[in-house]
Amino acid sequence: MAQHPPAVQWNCDADGFLRLIDQTRLPGEVVFRDCYTTEDVWQAIKELAVRGAPAIGVAAAYAIVLAARHNRQTQTELFLERLRERASYLKSCRPTAVNLAWAVDQMLQSVESCRDGTDPATMLNMLLAKAHAIRDEDAGMCRAIGEHGARLLPSSGGVLTHCNAGALATSEHGTALATMFAAWRQGKRFRVFADETRPLLQGARLTCWELQQHGIDATLICDNMAGLLMKQGRIQAVMVGADRIAANGDAANKIGTYSVAVLARHHGIPFYVAAPSSTFDLSLPNGDHIPIEVRDPSEITAPFGRVTAPAGIDVYNPAFDVTPGSLISAIVTERGIIQPVSVQQIQDEIGV
Amino acid sequence: MAQHPPAVQWNCDADGFLRLIDQTRLPGEVVFRDCYTTEDVWQAIKELAVRGAPAIGVAAAYAIVLAARHNRQTQTELFLERLRERASYLKSCRPTAVNLAWAVDQMLQSVESCRDGTDPATMLNMLLAKAHAIRDEDAGMCRAIGEHGARLLPSSGGVLTHCNAGALATSEHGTALATMFAAWRQGKRFRVFADETRPLLQGARLTCWELQQHGIDATLICDNMAGLLMKQGRIQAVMVGADRIAANGDAANKIGTYSVAVLARHHGIPFYVAAPSSTFDLSLPNGDHIPIEVRDPSEITAPFGRVTAPAGIDVYNPAFDVTPGSLISAIVTERGIIQPVSVQQIQDEIGV
Repeated sequence: MAQHPPAVQWNCDADGFLRLIDQTRLPGEVVFRDCYTTEDVWQAIKELAVRGAPAIGVAAAYAIVLAARHNRQTQTELFLERLRERASYLKSCRPTAVNLAWAVDQMLQSVESCRDGTDPATMLNMLLAKAHAIRDEDAGMCRAIGEHGARLLPSSGGVLTHCNAGALATSEHGTALATMFAAWRQGKRFRVFADETRPLLQGARLTCWELQQHGIDATLICDNMAGLLMKQGRIQAVMVGADRIAANGDAANKIGTYSVAVLARHHGIPFYVAAPSSTFDLSLPNGDHIPIEVRDPSEITAPFGRVTAPAGIDVYNPAFDVTPGSLISAIVTERGIIQPVSVQQIQDEIGV
Repeated sequence: MAQHPPAVQWNCDADGFLRLIDQTRLPGEVVFRDCYTTEDVWQAIKELAVRGAPAIGVAAAYAIVLAARHNRQTQTELFLERLRERASYLKSCRPTAVNLAWAVDQMLQSVESCRDGTDPATMLNMLLAKAHAIRDEDAGMCRAIGEHGARLLPSSGGVLTHCNAGALATSEHGTALATMFAAWRQGKRFRVFADETRPLLQGARLTCWELQQHGIDATLICDNMAGLLMKQGRIQAVMVGADRIAANGDAANKIGTYSVAVLARHHGIPFYVAAPSSTFDLSLPNGDHIPIEVRDPSEITAPFGRVTAPAGIDVYNPAFDVTPGSLISAIVTERGIIQPVSVQQIQDEIGV
């Protein structure tokens, strides 16, 4: 169970609003950020107040509810038109994670198929129920991922993770971290090595915080130390999340994941990805087709307040990279473990 | 030629003192840090106001001069005894780079071999001359490294470097960066990708600054982005420095270098090390015997002012790692290019 408030929750006070933990403020303080409009949610996603593919999906679902409420006095046709426009707007916020588009599309479909004559007020209720369902489904998937993935983890030694794929990145439990939480509940006692994950330090700020709250042995390292730890024999497995997975298993995840996968292969260490089935995008044959978000240079040149690079320097700041399926030992979903990672195995598990 | 004051220089004003560029303040401002005692230099090395194996060696040589001056009124025997004590103290400051011990030993030897009756005042003059010679020799070696190494670099495309092995890390010119300066003078026009180099960002703060001053195309990236760039085909060679090289070519360098070497091997990209012959420690059969400095956790948990990790988190902060000679395509020294990297080749080039 999460040891802190959920990253994304619907608050029923007054007319209802979306309450997020502002993750840019962690671990210093737990501060809520309340969203009353679609624009509020868009901004929160953009600024990474809420991040992590599944959590973004759940937040976007509630953003559609906020849009519906804003337009509930209009005629049905205009109501739907405005929802579609808001859906498109939300999808523009961050391009890499597929869960955002997936959740928004699920929301639209839930009302597009209404029989003629359904009024916007009814649709609003249906949308709120659907958003709750997406949230609950995500929590259920994450719990199942934890149970399936726990058996891939060692009884002792070390497990490396990159970025944050914990409860903060989902509606509950997490994906990669869910497997660690479950394994520790089963009595396994490995140490988790958390890559700090430059530039925004989600590993240092969020993963270490979550692991501490669960009482799991954790050690923080810089991203460039993972290779040394592997060489020292201190890492027995790598477990990370994903933002989009193509039909052949190529997986987009936080920048630096690909390097970790290459290092793991070099050292003969299994490299695992944990993600709900909603993360798969089977319309893409491989990872070359996954759009990679490039973010602002200041995230690198002015980390956390102080300018640490000369003015005018050119910067490259991709937020994600793609790890080829061939470097992934197994993918853990709520349905089980996909191993080996191949077009056929993925089709068999996810495509039906 | 350097486009800024030297990192380490003897200032003849008054009784003479050692003037360092305080590298912890770069690139924000060029501030000098003047050292009048051995303790001042020890502290400056410890705090990385001066860093880079060759520059540390030169600074330590002048620190012996400062010690000699402090004791010049004593009897010869006591004078030498105190110098030996100060030499041992200086060596304790940072364990990994061999140049520090090498330079200090060179200084001691220059006076230990004096004929009986040489007085401390004369020895002081000899020590100052020896320190200047070590500085000049380093500058000359770096210039030669640049000329030899330039031919390993591509005419276009990209070259990756890690940490700072530039003029700031030596008495002049640099080692890895010297090869780039020379290649650009020859008309080669590659772009340098500079790993920022966590935790202390020597790549962002120092390498980018030096490259800018030389008008060389440079792009700053986070350490965890190097793998993606290699996969994209944007890196044609890697060139880094070294802090100590064992008899079989295993090379200690800034933490993260080993990961870059593994990534380069995976992508079929040549990985080069540039270092003066004073960096070799042929008394060590391989890199397992190189002591690795572990530094304070706060370098990782409170980067540049703001605390970004939860209180009490365990941290591992090694300052160096060792890249096996088997992953190094060639080592550039002032004597030429060692290729392939093998015990025999190194013995032939360095051991004589």
